[in-house]
Amino acid sequence: MKIKILGCYAATPRTITNPTSQVLEIKNHMFLIDCGEGTQVQLRKHKIKFSRIEHVFISHLHGDHFFGLIGLISTFMLLGREKDLHIYGPKGIKEAILLLLKLGNAYTSYNLYFHELTSNESEIVFEDNKVRVSTIPLKHRVYTNGYLFEEKITERPLNIATILNYDIDKLYYNKIKMGGDITLEDGRVIANTELTFDPPLPNSYAFCSDTVYTTTILPIIKNVKVLYHESTFLEKEAHLAEKTMHTTAKQAANIAKLANAETLLLGHYSTRYGDINLFQKEAQEIFENVLLGDDGAAFEF
Amino acid sequence: MKIKILGCYAATPRTITNPTSQVLEIKNHMFLIDCGEGTQVQLRKHKIKFSRIEHVFISHLHGDHFFGLIGLISTFMLLGREKDLHIYGPKGIKEAILLLLKLGNAYTSYNLYFHELTSNESEIVFEDNKVRVSTIPLKHRVYTNGYLFEEKITERPLNIATILNYDIDKLYYNKIKMGGDITLEDGRVIANTELTFDPPLPNSYAFCSDTVYTTTILPIIKNVKVLYHESTFLEKEAHLAEKTMHTTAKQAANIAKLANAETLLLGHYSTRYGDINLFQKEAQEIFENVLLGDDGAAFEF
Repeated sequence: MKIKILGCYAATPRTITNPTSQVLEIKNHMFLIDCGEGTQVQLRKHKIKFSRIEHVFISHLHGDHFFGLIGLISTFMLLGREKDLHIYGPKGIKEAILLLLKLGNAYTSYNLYFHELTSNESEIVFEDNKVRVSTIPLKHRVYTNGYLFEEKITERPLNIATILNYDIDKLYYNKIKMGGDITLEDGRVIANTELTFDPPLPNSYAFCSDTVYTTTILPIIKNVKVLYHESTFLEKEAHLAEKTMHTTAKQAANIAKLANAETLLLGHYSTRYGDINLFQKEAQEIFENVLLGDDGAAFEF
Repeated sequence: MKIKILGCYAATPRTITNPTSQVLEIKNHMFLIDCGEGTQVQLRKHKIKFSRIEHVFISHLHGDHFFGLIGLISTFMLLGREKDLHIYGPKGIKEAILLLLKLGNAYTSYNLYFHELTSNESEIVFEDNKVRVSTIPLKHRVYTNGYLFEEKITERPLNIATILNYDIDKLYYNKIKMGGDITLEDGRVIANTELTFDPPLPNSYAFCSDTVYTTTILPIIKNVKVLYHESTFLEKEAHLAEKTMHTTAKQAANIAKLANAETLLLGHYSTRYGDINLFQKEAQEIFENVLLGDDGAAFEF
C-alpha cells in the first residue's frame, strides 16, 4: 500500500503549497482522493499515469478539495481517454460537473459515472474481490465523508507440515485456505487454526478530512493500519478549530489512540504555520507513531 | 499600459506551462483577462495584489480560459475581500459560479456582479472617464468574445506660447483643452489646432482568443496599438487550426496587418511545439512587429 501526497494544505493554493489531493495505491488500484485546484499538474509533476486513475473519491465540495476535478476530467477528455471514470462524492457533484461540461460544449469521450452520497451512516461505495471502500461520515461545515480503504483477507496461508502430518488430501486445501475445519476419516475434527497460519494483517487506510474532532468515527476506523487525519491547527488555536470545524494535531492524535491505529499521518495544515514539525511534536505527546504528510511525500506500508 | 502574461498555452495546464490568463494595467485599472486553472497561483507568483483586481473578463467557457475563476473568487472570500468584483463573460457563467459557491455553502463577503454576454455584435461592457472596454465577437467552438481596451483621449495639451500670444483669458483654457475653437474680441476665430498640440495616440489593446481566422473583427480592432491574437498552430497545421477553430501564426499576422495594428503579441500556443520562436518567425514573414507572449513575460507600451 502506497500513499502519495499531492497536496495537504488547507484553504487556498499557493506557490509553495497545494490544496488537498492524494493517491492511494492498493491492490493494483490507483485511487485518487480529493482533487483541489492544481491536482492535474501535481499528478504530472509526480509522474502518475492519468490512465491508472479510475476512481476519484471526493470528501466534500469545498474548493480546496474539489476545484481541480473539472479540469482533470477535461484533460482526460482532451488526451483521448477511453476508460471509464468513477466519481464518488456528495450529492450535487454531478450537477456541477455536467453543467461545466455543458457550458464548454465539451462531452467526455469516456463514460463518467457519478456515485452521489447523501447518507450519514457509513456505507460501502466500492468493492471488488480484493478491496473494499466505505464512507466515514465526518462533521464539517458542509456534508463531508472520509473514506476507509480496506484490503480483503483473501486466504489463510497453509501450514503444510501439519497438513502432511494428518495426511489430508489436496482436494481439501482450498477449503482450509478459506478457514474451514477438517474432519479426518477416523472422525477427529482438526481446527483450521491448527492447519493454517494467521494471514498478515490486511492493509487499511482511513482518510479523514475535513472534520471537527468527533469520536463517532471510531467504530468505523477501529484498528486501522494508517489513519490520515486532518490537523488544520495546533492546540493553541483549538478555538479556531472548533469555530471552523477542523481539528488540532492533539485531537487527531487522540483519535488515532482511541481507534488503536497503527500509524497516524497528519495533513491539511493551515498555512499560518511556518513549521509543520510542530504538528508532529504536538501529536506525539499523545500518540507515538506520527508521520507528517507534505506535498510530494510518499509512504509505503 | 502594461501587459503581464500569466499563462498563454492552449488546452491543459502542465508543470511548465499555464493556460490562458493575463493582466492588463491601463489607466490605474488592473484588468484580469481569462482565468485558466492555476491563475491564482500565477498571480501570487508574480506578486500581483489580489485587491487591485476589480474586473475579470472571460472570453469563453472552455476550461483553459475559465476553470481558475471559481478558485480565485473563493480565495478572495477566504482572504476577507470587501471590494466589489465584476465578472464579464458568456451567459451561463453566473449559474456555474453560483452553483459551485452554493455547493460549498460558501457565499462571498463582497459583492459579485455578473455581466453576462449574449450578443454577436460588439458592445461596450465597461466605461469610465478614462477607459472603455468593448467586446470583439470571435468565432470558436463555443460562444466567445475577445475584448478591446481603449484609453480615452481626455484632453488636448495646450500650446501656451500661442495662447499667450493671442492674450486668451485662462477662463477659456478648459474649453480649449476639450477641443473648442476661440473667438477673439476682434471677431477672429482661432482654430483649436492652432492653440493645442495633438495628444499622444491613446493606448489600446485587443485581446483575441480563441478564434478561427476571421476578418469580421477588423472594423473593431482597426489601428489598435497592441493586438494579442492567438496562434495555436503553425501554418503547416492549418488544417488543425480550421478543424479546432483556432488560428495559425501566419493568419494572426495577416489580421495584424489588415487591422493596421502597431504591434502583434502572440500566444495560446499548442503544447505540441517545442520552440515558440517558430511562431514569431512565421508571423514576421507577414508583419514585422511581432512579440512573443510567454508565461511570466511582461510588456509595456
